[in-house]
Amino acid sequence: MDLNPLLVESEAKILFVIADGLGGIDSGGRGTELEAARTPNLDQLARQGVTGLAYPVAPGITPGSGPGHLALFGYDPVEHNIGRGVLTALGIDVDLEPGDVAARGNFCTLDSHGQVVDRRAGRIDTGECTRLVEMLREIRLDDVEVYLEPVREHRFLLVLRSKKEALGAQLDNTDPQRTGAPPREPHARDESSQATASMVSEFLAQAREILAGEDPANMVLLRGFGQLPRLASLQESYGLSGCALAGYPMYRGISRLLGMKVMDCGPDLDSEIEALQAAWSHHDFLFLHFKDTDSRGEDGDFEGKVAAIEELDHAIPRMIELQPDVIVVTGDHSTPSAMASHSWHPVPVLISANTCRADGVEVFGETACAGGGLGHLPAKHLMTLALAHAGRLRKFGA
Amino acid sequence: MDLNPLLVESEAKILFVIADGLGGIDSGGRGTELEAARTPNLDQLARQGVTGLAYPVAPGITPGSGPGHLALFGYDPVEHNIGRGVLTALGIDVDLEPGDVAARGNFCTLDSHGQVVDRRAGRIDTGECTRLVEMLREIRLDDVEVYLEPVREHRFLLVLRSKKEALGAQLDNTDPQRTGAPPREPHARDESSQATASMVSEFLAQAREILAGEDPANMVLLRGFGQLPRLASLQESYGLSGCALAGYPMYRGISRLLGMKVMDCGPDLDSEIEALQAAWSHHDFLFLHFKDTDSRGEDGDFEGKVAAIEELDHAIPRMIELQPDVIVVTGDHSTPSAMASHSWHPVPVLISANTCRADGVEVFGETACAGGGLGHLPAKHLMTLALAHAGRLRKFGA
Repeated sequence: MDLNPLLVESEAKILFVIADGLGGIDSGGRGTELEAARTPNLDQLARQGVTGLAYPVAPGITPGSGPGHLALFGYDPVEHNIGRGVLTALGIDVDLEPGDVAARGNFCTLDSHGQVVDRRAGRIDTGECTRLVEMLREIRLDDVEVYLEPVREHRFLLVLRSKKEALGAQLDNTDPQRTGAPPREPHARDESSQATASMVSEFLAQAREILAGEDPANMVLLRGFGQLPRLASLQESYGLSGCALAGYPMYRGISRLLGMKVMDCGPDLDSEIEALQAAWSHHDFLFLHFKDTDSRGEDGDFEGKVAAIEELDHAIPRMIELQPDVIVVTGDHSTPSAMASHSWHPVPVLISANTCRADGVEVFGETACAGGGLGHLPAKHLMTLALAHAGRLRKFGA
Repeated sequence: MDLNPLLVESEAKILFVIADGLGGIDSGGRGTELEAARTPNLDQLARQGVTGLAYPVAPGITPGSGPGHLALFGYDPVEHNIGRGVLTALGIDVDLEPGDVAARGNFCTLDSHGQVVDRRAGRIDTGECTRLVEMLREIRLDDVEVYLEPVREHRFLLVLRSKKEALGAQLDNTDPQRTGAPPREPHARDESSQATASMVSEFLAQAREILAGEDPANMVLLRGFGQLPRLASLQESYGLSGCALAGYPMYRGISRLLGMKVMDCGPDLDSEIEALQAAWSHHDFLFLHFKDTDSRGEDGDFEGKVAAIEELDHAIPRMIELQPDVIVVTGDHSTPSAMASHSWHPVPVLISANTCRADGVEVFGETACAGGGLGHLPAKHLMTLALAHAGRLRKFGA
């Protein structure tokens, strides 16, 4: 629902601590990663606050990071589906123009039969990525300008800007999402994207030729084709001056899209917390993104994810010191290390504020949160709850 | 949401075990029927899997079997409301044509004042039903062909096929749903169903005359007027080759409507399980329907429902032997024997698969499931969850 008519002016500050891929499943009798981790500070927040399980999109749906974060900020992730290409572009300060088609690229490795053997080309380092992107910049296409930017490791950004008619962006991924299959041909899902598909096809043919002699990165995969969407900012939606503490491009991108100030900080927690301290007095809504929980989950590293959670827990007192009126701790989706991928499992969430109704939950973990006072709720409601606990919403109706 | 863009090819098999009317309410301090029953095999599945409570339509809404099953198969039961007449027709292999109006009929008993004293005419046997239907086939109406088919016990099917203009099917039931009241006059809910109401009125007048000398079945009640809806098949919706093991017409009908192969089997569990074994290798999605839990609930027979649940539990190992990748056990609605009718109480559900997050629930029962890891969820999400656990869905968004 539109919260605008309910907004109240307030100085109250809201802190969202988002541990990417936080949720897990149990493995080897130790419970989930969050349950196995020693988390005295998060447990304390859970004890003082109220807990639950949040599903970012819908039960059974595994969210990408884009939909996962949009839901956290209160935007319906099905209604507002943003391509990864657009998010990546925003995250590396590439100025997209309306109508530009952006896609996320991965360098990958093909075998001699043209089958993908590594979708990430051994996660080549950013220097190698930069060198290869420089080579791909030779590519010329009729009727469009081609922009390429290295991102990080094996990832790069492709932007097509038309010199003539408008381009559609309804294209399927060329990434087959598994090894042992060839890259897919670009396929248009609507009439207006047919021309774009032909251009992308030509781009890929030239890229294949240029990279033929390289090892391991001898081809590219493209996904997340899209164009700049129009989204209301946090200021417009909630009257909040938002600020993001996020080291990774993707999350910086989505923050910028929602009109948040994106602080300059590294991807490590210390750097983010220093930036948080610096930004504190200037903003109402502060979003701190912690990536390692997801990365270790994706690696299938149970112990690594436990350690990442413990690192986050250890940093919690430095955040509490800032005296936020409302703290929300949750994730944008689950990434169980037992599955080494994002998953659909609902995400544990805690809200800590003076106005929480205690729910008897003593520890922050999936099993405990399943019986928490927030119940099992769509993640998009968390922002409304945060605003309520911050005293920023008046009653609905008389 | 449309799952089609997320579907992944897979060989994983999903088994839905639907105990009709499974949910109950406690009675005499022994808990619900499910809680009173000895169910070691279901408890074991609950312990290994994840549990919750499902509401088929919405909190407080008592579902008919049609909406209850549509929800289980992932179709919104409010958006897709199918009349019982149509389901019955499908269940006895009557070939409905688009535009036909179908209704479910009951033989009933009226007293000398024309009040219903038994809505089921003492549940006359199928032979008697067949004889009476034969008599009703004398009925002739202007402008429509009248088809009548006996179903089972006191139930029959009425189909009106227009020889001229299209017929509406927005008619209220003539069944007053209680004794001590006369049958209702057919009432059209929209303009285009006025003509149909007149025809039905004439049909009922002739039926009353023909049955006047019969005992106990001296009148008919009609309900569930409807026309063939267009529903996407399980193959179209989820890429699943579905198969139904269901002895009762109603459930065979809805399965056929969703493009499932309906196996030839009796209404008893043994016959269904033999058919399940025979069908196993040919399908991805197998739906086994167990009727006795509902029948005993409708009879108000607590012990009988307990025994039915124990019979189902006893058969579980024969299903597990087939090694489904995902098992879902639930009901299409609750039928508490204390109420002797369908009810709105949410239905216990368990999902067992390798990717379940354990939730600490040790037994399969309503009280335990209320704290389970699935929370309280609309039943229409169960299909999405089953697909997720089967590895048949890729992530949504990037």
